[in-house]
Amino acid sequence: MTARIIDGSAVAKKVREDVAGGVDRLVAAGGTPPGLATILIGDDPASEVYVRSKRRLSVAAGMQDLHRHLPGDVDQETAAALVDELAADPAVSGILLQLPTPGHLDSDALLARIPAEKDVDGLTTLNAGRLAQGRAALRPCTPAGVMRLLEEYEVSLSGAEAVVVGRSVLVGKPMAQLLLAAHATVTMAHSRTRDLAEVCRRADVLVVAAGIPGLVGADAVKPGATVIDVGIHRGEDGLHGDVEFGPVSEVAGAITPVPGGVGPMTIAMLLANTLTAARVQQGIAD
Amino acid sequence: MTARIIDGSAVAKKVREDVAGGVDRLVAAGGTPPGLATILIGDDPASEVYVRSKRRLSVAAGMQDLHRHLPGDVDQETAAALVDELAADPAVSGILLQLPTPGHLDSDALLARIPAEKDVDGLTTLNAGRLAQGRAALRPCTPAGVMRLLEEYEVSLSGAEAVVVGRSVLVGKPMAQLLLAAHATVTMAHSRTRDLAEVCRRADVLVVAAGIPGLVGADAVKPGATVIDVGIHRGEDGLHGDVEFGPVSEVAGAITPVPGGVGPMTIAMLLANTLTAARVQQGIAD
Repeated sequence: MTARIIDGSAVAKKVREDVAGGVDRLVAAGGTPPGLATILIGDDPASEVYVRSKRRLSVAAGMQDLHRHLPGDVDQETAAALVDELAADPAVSGILLQLPTPGHLDSDALLARIPAEKDVDGLTTLNAGRLAQGRAALRPCTPAGVMRLLEEYEVSLSGAEAVVVGRSVLVGKPMAQLLLAAHATVTMAHSRTRDLAEVCRRADVLVVAAGIPGLVGADAVKPGATVIDVGIHRGEDGLHGDVEFGPVSEVAGAITPVPGGVGPMTIAMLLANTLTAARVQQGIAD
Repeated sequence: MTARIIDGSAVAKKVREDVAGGVDRLVAAGGTPPGLATILIGDDPASEVYVRSKRRLSVAAGMQDLHRHLPGDVDQETAAALVDELAADPAVSGILLQLPTPGHLDSDALLARIPAEKDVDGLTTLNAGRLAQGRAALRPCTPAGVMRLLEEYEVSLSGAEAVVVGRSVLVGKPMAQLLLAAHATVTMAHSRTRDLAEVCRRADVLVVAAGIPGLVGADAVKPGATVIDVGIHRGEDGLHGDVEFGPVSEVAGAITPVPGGVGPMTIAMLLANTLTAARVQQGIAD
């Protein structure tokens, strides 16, 4: 084991404490506590677990839990009406639609109804455009969490070679934009990439968000590189990422474990986004 | 000279002829000719030349020229009111605000008033977001023109290594998105890139849009690569690009000249976007 372990749980705790302090200052300045409206449709057990964590941690940070639960057979119009109601409600700082929604619903159409200013998941098209054009925006939580980890561990990005594996709208694409904004030379690799290991070996900073267990092994990592593993997969012997942790940690300079790496950062950045949204809506700077 | 010369003038002519045919079919199907509203503010000679070309070629393609000229000292409110008027006018299929606008105006705020459906330059934040999220959108004309050249010359993109030099909102960033959507492995390089020549040498397809005359020389090009030069600079002995044409054309497999490469494609794609916008607005498919 040579790589430094990037402790996402510790950084996430720090972010949550910072957010709690920010909520206190917002209230002390005459504002109202940020309100997070999580929307859960149906009873998917994994989604329930995620939503419960988000609600619990938002309350722990001093926010208002404005959770809404709709039955799994709800129709599109009713779900849309709920989003519109929350969009218009001044007590709601942020709206989070837990994905995936049941198959009969058009989740894109529901997301499109969330005003960009309350889009604390950073998933609306307008926020994606703001990010692409280098404007202020609420950023998708997972890539924003990765950036925070890199910052916390003082990983140098300007002029560095960064490789992002995976090009999802949720993670890979915004991740590349954020690394580019930090002045890295950014390569976007994916399932069609000809020699993935060769491309990955260029990276000073390698972010793997492909959703394929163990995709990246030690042969794909430059000695000393920083490796960020966004994957999470449940195996018979526990949770695993997209990176072969054991072998890669003997080559990399720093690496995120799974669990305890990127995972806890996602909710922490959701809380940070919700505080930011509340400050903007209430016109109270920190 | 070994490289094949990519004849942008010929491809642009073909695109314009295709657009003219599409306009005929739109009208034959009961539609009205697309209307292009160019907005020129002030009397910058270069901008006048560009706008005149756009108007002339749109008329040649059978479109309506709905040009508007505002004095250089116009105030923001008046300019905004004109954009709003054109946005509401059903005869206007596309709105093009010629950039740069005079320094006292906020051009971003003017662009933001253009409805995404009439944004034939593909510059609004919503269209940038649609592109980033892989949705249907009017695309920025220059990168769309590059894609058309690559298609016309049957340059294979899936799995290819593409390098884009320059990260502007107008060209570099949307270029990278379009190449990624075509399944290339895409690297975004820029002024902070450590060893630009080394990064460029990886490219099967190299798109240079840095705005620096002669930035890319033969040492930065892999033998056989396709080199697209978006730069255009006026020197004492004529126009030059970002690429050293002479030396690079002895290494590359194919290359765009300056002038006569990417340049003519930009207006051709503007016309194509205007036709697309008119079809969508009039509800008449081709």
